[in-house]
Amino acid sequence: MSDQNPLFIPGPTNMPDRLRHAMQVQTRDHRAPDFVDTLLPVLDGCKEVFGTKTGHVITFPASGTGGWEAAITNTLSPGDTVLVARYGMFSHRWIDMCQRHGLDVRIIECDWGAGAPADRFEEALRADSVHAIKAVLVTHNETATGVKSDIGEVRGAMDAADHPALLLVDCVSSLASMPFEMDAWGVDIAVSGSQKGFMLATGMAILAASPKALAAMDDATLPRTFFDFRDMMQSNATGGFPYTPPLQLIYGMRESLKMLAEEGLENVYARHHRLAEGVRRAVRGWGLQLVAQSPELYSDTVSAIYVPKGFNSNALTDHAFKAYGVSFGVGLGEMNGKAFRIGHLGSLTDVMVLSGLATIEMAMADLNYPIELGDGVSAAQEYFRTSRAATLKSAA
Amino acid sequence: MSDQNPLFIPGPTNMPDRLRHAMQVQTRDHRAPDFVDTLLPVLDGCKEVFGTKTGHVITFPASGTGGWEAAITNTLSPGDTVLVARYGMFSHRWIDMCQRHGLDVRIIECDWGAGAPADRFEEALRADSVHAIKAVLVTHNETATGVKSDIGEVRGAMDAADHPALLLVDCVSSLASMPFEMDAWGVDIAVSGSQKGFMLATGMAILAASPKALAAMDDATLPRTFFDFRDMMQSNATGGFPYTPPLQLIYGMRESLKMLAEEGLENVYARHHRLAEGVRRAVRGWGLQLVAQSPELYSDTVSAIYVPKGFNSNALTDHAFKAYGVSFGVGLGEMNGKAFRIGHLGSLTDVMVLSGLATIEMAMADLNYPIELGDGVSAAQEYFRTSRAATLKSAA
Amino acid sequence: MSDQNPLFIPGPTNMPDRLRHAMQVQTRDHRAPDFVDTLLPVLDGCKEVFGTKTGHVITFPASGTGGWEAAITNTLSPGDTVLVARYGMFSHRWIDMCQRHGLDVRIIECDWGAGAPADRFEEALRADSVHAIKAVLVTHNETATGVKSDIGEVRGAMDAADHPALLLVDCVSSLASMPFEMDAWGVDIAVSGSQKGFMLATGMAILAASPKALAAMDDATLPRTFFDFRDMMQSNATGGFPYTPPLQLIYGMRESLKMLAEEGLENVYARHHRLAEGVRRAVRGWGLQLVAQSPELYSDTVSAIYVPKGFNSNALTDHAFKAYGVSFGVGLGEMNGKAFRIGHLGSLTDVMVLSGLATIEMAMADLNYPIELGDGVSAAQEYFRTSRAATLKSAA
Amino acid sequence: MSDQNPLFIPGPTNMPDRLRHAMQVQTRDHRAPDFVDTLLPVLDGCKEVFGTKTGHVITFPASGTGGWEAAITNTLSPGDTVLVARYGMFSHRWIDMCQRHGLDVRIIECDWGAGAPADRFEEALRADSVHAIKAVLVTHNETATGVKSDIGEVRGAMDAADHPALLLVDCVSSLASMPFEMDAWGVDIAVSGSQKGFMLATGMAILAASPKALAAMDDATLPRTFFDFRDMMQSNATGGFPYTPPLQLIYGMRESLKMLAEEGLENVYARHHRLAEGVRRAVRGWGLQLVAQSPELYSDTVSAIYVPKGFNSNALTDHAFKAYGVSFGVGLGEMNGKAFRIGHLGSLTDVMVLSGLATIEMAMADLNYPIELGDGVSAAQEYFRTSRAATLKSAA
Repeated sequence: MSDQNPLFIPGPTNMPDRLRHAMQVQTRDHRAPDFVDTLLPVLDGCKEVFGTKTGHVITFPASGTGGWEAAITNTLSPGDTVLVARYGMFSHRWIDMCQRHGLDVRIIECDWGAGAPADRFEEALRADSVHAIKAVLVTHNETATGVKSDIGEVRGAMDAADHPALLLVDCVSSLASMPFEMDAWGVDIAVSGSQKGFMLATGMAILAASPKALAAMDDATLPRTFFDFRDMMQSNATGGFPYTPPLQLIYGMRESLKMLAEEGLENVYARHHRLAEGVRRAVRGWGLQLVAQSPELYSDTVSAIYVPKGFNSNALTDHAFKAYGVSFGVGLGEMNGKAFRIGHLGSLTDVMVLSGLATIEMAMADLNYPIELGDGVSAAQEYFRTSRAATLKSAA
Repeated sequence: MSDQNPLFIPGPTNMPDRLRHAMQVQTRDHRAPDFVDTLLPVLDGCKEVFGTKTGHVITFPASGTGGWEAAITNTLSPGDTVLVARYGMFSHRWIDMCQRHGLDVRIIECDWGAGAPADRFEEALRADSVHAIKAVLVTHNETATGVKSDIGEVRGAMDAADHPALLLVDCVSSLASMPFEMDAWGVDIAVSGSQKGFMLATGMAILAASPKALAAMDDATLPRTFFDFRDMMQSNATGGFPYTPPLQLIYGMRESLKMLAEEGLENVYARHHRLAEGVRRAVRGWGLQLVAQSPELYSDTVSAIYVPKGFNSNALTDHAFKAYGVSFGVGLGEMNGKAFRIGHLGSLTDVMVLSGLATIEMAMADLNYPIELGDGVSAAQEYFRTSRAATLKSAA
Repeated sequence: MSDQNPLFIPGPTNMPDRLRHAMQVQTRDHRAPDFVDTLLPVLDGCKEVFGTKTGHVITFPASGTGGWEAAITNTLSPGDTVLVARYGMFSHRWIDMCQRHGLDVRIIECDWGAGAPADRFEEALRADSVHAIKAVLVTHNETATGVKSDIGEVRGAMDAADHPALLLVDCVSSLASMPFEMDAWGVDIAVSGSQKGFMLATGMAILAASPKALAAMDDATLPRTFFDFRDMMQSNATGGFPYTPPLQLIYGMRESLKMLAEEGLENVYARHHRLAEGVRRAVRGWGLQLVAQSPELYSDTVSAIYVPKGFNSNALTDHAFKAYGVSFGVGLGEMNGKAFRIGHLGSLTDVMVLSGLATIEMAMADLNYPIELGDGVSAAQEYFRTSRAATLKSAA
Repeated sequence: MSDQNPLFIPGPTNMPDRLRHAMQVQTRDHRAPDFVDTLLPVLDGCKEVFGTKTGHVITFPASGTGGWEAAITNTLSPGDTVLVARYGMFSHRWIDMCQRHGLDVRIIECDWGAGAPADRFEEALRADSVHAIKAVLVTHNETATGVKSDIGEVRGAMDAADHPALLLVDCVSSLASMPFEMDAWGVDIAVSGSQKGFMLATGMAILAASPKALAAMDDATLPRTFFDFRDMMQSNATGGFPYTPPLQLIYGMRESLKMLAEEGLENVYARHHRLAEGVRRAVRGWGLQLVAQSPELYSDTVSAIYVPKGFNSNALTDHAFKAYGVSFGVGLGEMNGKAFRIGHLGSLTDVMVLSGLATIEMAMADLNYPIELGDGVSAAQEYFRTSRAATLKSAA
C-alpha cells in the first residue's frame, strides 16, 4: 500500500492528478494542422518561468542530461576550453561529459557543500586574456548537496573580468521552484527538465538559449543531430518537430504552465521556501547539520543532511524505504554514506512534508540515532503553523 | 495543491491508483455474453469478506442507505415491529427510515458512545413472547461515535431469548476493515457499501442475505422494485442485471477483492488495528478522550474524539480544512460541536496517518488547545515504530 | 484488442476521455465547506438541458429505474390511479413498478413501434370526470423500439381534457441528445440518468420536478427514504447530501455540462440527428425496416431494426460480438429475436458510426442475410458526406 | 468530439487503455532497491521481440532518431565509411545524420518504392577489399513508402562478400508488428522506439546490440555521453540508470510486453498482416496504386498510396482531418503531394480499420476522385469477413 505515500527524492516529484491526466492524452497526429496551436504556446509559456524575454525555448525528448549535451554540442567545438567548478555530483558529471566530448575543461575544485565560487571564476577569467575559455558552466542548484549558487554573482564575475565566454547553467532542479532570472543574470543557455518543478514525468529536456548562444551555433562543430538546435527551431517554427515529439509531455507541460500561472510563480517560490524552511527547522531540531555550508546557499528544493559520525546514511534511507515505504534521496558521490537528502519540491504541501519528517524521524529512532521522536517534527510544525498566515494563499 | 493530502473522514476513503484505474474501464455491453464472467465471481468473492458460505450477495447501484432500505423492504411488511438500539447517528437514521416505511419501531435508547446493548435486547426479546418483533437492527460500527459493537453477543441474546426475529446489521463502515463473521454471528442481512473498506467510489450498496432472510421475502409486502432482491437475483443468475448495472464499480470491486486477497484479510484487519491504535495513542498523548466508552468498543476504522470543554469541534475541523487542506470528520448529531472524528480506514499507511495527526495537532495548537506540538504525533510514532516488526508484512 | 472498438448499444455510451478523467477525481470530503460550490452549479446547470426554468433538479446515486421509483413514490399514494400506455419494454417496466407499488394502473395497449397515443390519452382523461387519475406516465424515447413520442401532444391531450393529473416522463435515453422542453411541455417530473446523453458512467439518476410535483409530495404516502425528494432538497440547499453522494459522477456531470455547453445543445441535437439519419439511410440501403412505424417517431438516439423473416436477431448480435468484438443492442421483450438495435447517442462521430455499420453489414453477410456488402455503408457515407457542410461545426 | 476517432498515421499509434494506465504510474524512486526488479525483466523481455538471445537490450529516454544516433556514435569514429541505400525519407535522414557526424557515407540511390538492394550492397562490399566500410545501414520498414526490406538478404549479401562490416538496422516501424529476427539475420544493432508496435507514448528509444557491436565500442571515438552504451549497461547491471529514467515508459513497456505475450507474437504478426491486406484490398478496389513496387515489399504496418494524376495527396489528408477529424499519414519527401499513407499498426482491429477506409473514401469522393463510395470498403469487408475464421483468435 506504500504507493500512496509521498516520496521525498529531489525529483522526479510527486505528480498531481491534474498533470497525470493531461499526460494521459490519447495519441494525436503531430503532423496535423492543429499541433502548432499546442506546441508554440507551450514553448512561449516557458519563457516566463526561465525569466527571459529574449531567449528561445527548445525542448527535446530526453532527460536533463540530454539537455546538457545539447547545450555544449550546439555551442562548442572539439578542443574548446570551458571553465567549471566542481562542488557536487551534477557539476562533476557535466565535467565528465565535457571531457568525453573532447573539450578542454578547466576545473575549479571546491568543497562539496560550497556554491559556485564567483571570485575564483573571476580570477580564472581575468587570467584568460586570450579568451580561450569559451564557456563557463554552472550548476544553479546542486542536487547532491542541497546548495543553491548565486548565478547573478557569477555573471558579475564574468562582467568584471570583461570576458566574452558563454554562461551555461544547469537549472534542472531549481527551475519552476526557485526564482530564475535568465535575462537579468545574462545566462546564455539554461538547461532544465520536465520532472522537477514542472511536476511531470521524466522525458523532456527544456532549454532556453540566448541570441548569443544561438549565434555560437554557426561555429560550433561538435557533432549533433538529435540534439541540433537549428533543426528543432526550424521545425518548431511551423509547429513541427524534426522527429516524433513527446506529445504526452507537451500536453502535460501546457497544463503545468497553467497550474504555475494559477498559483502564481511568486507564490510557488514562497511555498517552496516555506516547505524547505520547515525541513531545515526539523534538521536543527534533530541537532543535525546540512551539507550546505551557509544559509545563503540553502536550496529550497532539496536538503542534504549529514548523519552523525558512526552512522551510515545509506542504512537510513534503506531502512526508511523498507520499513515505512518512503523514499528519501541517498547520498551521492562524496556524500555517499555521509548524508541523506530530503527532496521538497514540486507538488507538495506542508502536510506531506510532515509525513516525510515523521517517517525519517522514526527511521532514525529505529537505528538509534541520538534524537527524540518529535524533535524535528514539532519544530517543523511550529514553523508551518506560525508561517502559515503569510503564505496561506499559496498553501491553499 | 491540497488534492494530494490524504483525507481522514471515515469514508469515502482515499482510493489507490490501482482501483481508480480499474474503475476507469471504458463502457462495455452489460448484455454481452461475457458480462456473466465478470459479475458472478465478484458477487461470489464478496462472500469471504462477509464471512459467509451460505449467504447470497446482492448489490445495487446506490449508497449504503439504499442498502438499508433494501434490507427492510425485502423482509418486512407495513406495521411490522422491529427492535433497534439508538446509540449514534447511523442507528438513528435507520430508525427514522423504518418509521417512514410504516414499521413499528421499538427503540432502546443508549448513550452515544455505548455499543449495542445485548442484555437489553435480550430483555426486550424475552418480553416479546408473541414474537411480534420481526427483526433486530444493529449497527456494527457506529461511524458517528467510533464504536464497534459485538454482533456475536447480540446473536447470543437472541438465541438466549429463543427469538426467531431476523438480525439485520449495518456493516457499512466496518466490512473489509474489521473482522465480520456473518455465518458465525447468525446475521440475516449485512449491509455495506463500496466506498469504505473496499476503497472504491461511492455508488454500490453491497448486501449479503441469509437463506432465512431470503425466505422472508415471500411474506414481505413493503413495496419495492428498484431494490427488489428477487429481480436482482434472477437477473444475476444468468449474469444479468434488472437495469443498467454500475459497470465501473463492478470492475472496481473485482480489483478490490484482488487487492484484499493479496494483502490477506487477516493482514488487512491487523493493519487497520495498528493504524487505529496509533491514533488512539495520539489521543492519549493529547490528553483527550474518545467518545467510545471502553476499549472493547474502540473502532478500528474511525475514532471520535471529544474536544475539551469550551472548544467547538466544528471550529477545529473547519480550521484544519481551511488552513491545511485536510478533511477530518465533523461531529454528527449529538456529537456536533463536541467531538471530531479521524477516519483511519481503507487504503492507508502509518505514514499517511502521521500526516493527519501532525495536521490536527497544528490545528489544535492554532486554536489554543491545551496541548503541545508533538504530544500526539510522537506517541503515535513510538507505537508505529515498535509495532512495526510484528506487522511489517501488511504495512509493506 | 476489441476494447478499442466503439460500442453501439443505446447506452451506457462510449465515454470520452475528458469525462473519464473528470470522474477519476480522488475522494474529497463531501462535508467540507467547498462541496456546495461543486454541487449546486451542477444541479442548476442541468436545468437548461431539461428545458426548465421553474423545475427543481434532484439527483440520486441510482440508475434511471431508481429515478422512476423516486418519481412515483414522491407524488403518489397506495391505491392511486395512473394512466400509462404500453408500447415497449421500458413503458412495460414502469407499469410493472407501479403495480408493485400498489397503484391502480390503467394501461393503454399499443403496438410496439407506435408512440404515445395522445388521442387515446385524451379519451381516457375526458372519461375520468372524477379525476381519479393522479398521473400520466409517458416514455419519451422507447429504447426498445427506437420510438420517440411527442410529449407536447400528450400535454395537449391533458389540457384538452382539462385534467389535473401530473405528467411524469421517462427521458432516460433522450435527454441531452434530443430536444426536451420540460416547461413548454408541462412536464411535472422528468427522469433521466448519467449514462446516456451525458456520456458518463451509470450510477446517477437525474430528475427535474415542477412546483406542482413538489406540492404533491405533501399528500404522497408511498413509503420512501432513500429516494425522498424533501430530504434531498433540504440537504442540497446547503450543499449537502442526506447520505454519501456519488462524488465522481457529480464531478463528471460538471464536466459533461461544460462539454454540452461548448458544443451547444442545438449542435448536440443536430449531431445526433445527423448520425441517426445516416444509420437510417444504411437500413434503407439494406432493404430492412425500422420498428418505429413512421418517420415522426424515429428516435435520434437508437434505431431498432427488424431482421428479415427467418432470421434471428439474437444470432446476429451474438455473431457481431463474437466475430468482430462489437456490441449492438439486442431485441428486448416482444422484439426479442425479431429486431436488433443500433445505439447512436452520446460521444459519437460519423466515423465511429461507419465502423458500426460496416461491422453489422459483415455480420449480416456472414449469416447469409440478403444484402450486399456496401449496401448500407455507402448509403450512410453518401449522407454523411453531403450533410457534412451543414453540420460541420458540430461534427468537429 | 473527434478525439474518439482512431488515427491512421504510421505511429505513434492508438494507445490501449491498459497501456495508458500502466504509463500513468505515480512517481517512484528509481534509486530504490526495487527498481531493479522492474527494469531488468523489461530489458530481458524485449529480447524475444527483437528475435535475439545473444543481443543486449539498451533503452534511452529519446525518440527513435536518438536511437540511430546511439547506434552510430557507439560503434563508429569520425571519418569512418558506412554504406547506405536511400529509398525513402527515413533512410535519407539516417544518411544526413551520418554525414553530420563526420562519417564518409557511400550512398546507393534507389527508387522510392524499392527495398534494400541486396545485390548492389553485395557489389559495393565486394569492391571494398580493404574493408573501409565499417557498417551497412538498412531501414527495415520504410515508413515513408510502406516498403519492408528483406534484412536476411542483406545479411546474405554481406556474407557472400565475406565483409566484416557491422549491420545496423532501423526497425522503428516494424518491431513488434512484423517478424524481426536479429540473430538469424546477423543484425548488429537494431533500433526501435516505444510509440509503434509497442503501442506506448513516444519517448523511449529501444536498441538491441550484438556482442560484435558492443566490442566495436572500444574503438569508436565519436563523442557520446547521453547515448553511451557503456554507461547505460553498467548502470543497468545493478538496476540503475546513469540519469533519471523514463519511469512511466518502463512500466508501460512492462505491460506492453505482457500484452504481446498474451496475444502471442505470431498472432500479433498475423493480425497486422490481415489488417494490412484488408487495406490493400481497398486500395485495389479504388483502382489506386501502392508506392511499394511489388508484393514482397508490402509493409504490414503502413501503406503508402499514390493519388491519381492531377490530385494532391496533401489536400486529401488535410480534408480528411478537417472534415472528418481523422488523421492519415501525409506523403513525405519525394512522395509529398503524390501519396498519402494509412498506418495500420499497433493496437488496431479490423473494425477500426474499416472506419479509416470509410473515411478516406468519403474524403476522396468529396474531392472528386474517380472512385465510388463502397469500392474500397466493401473489398476490405469481404476480405476481413472471409479471413476472419483463420485469425479469429488474434482478432478477439
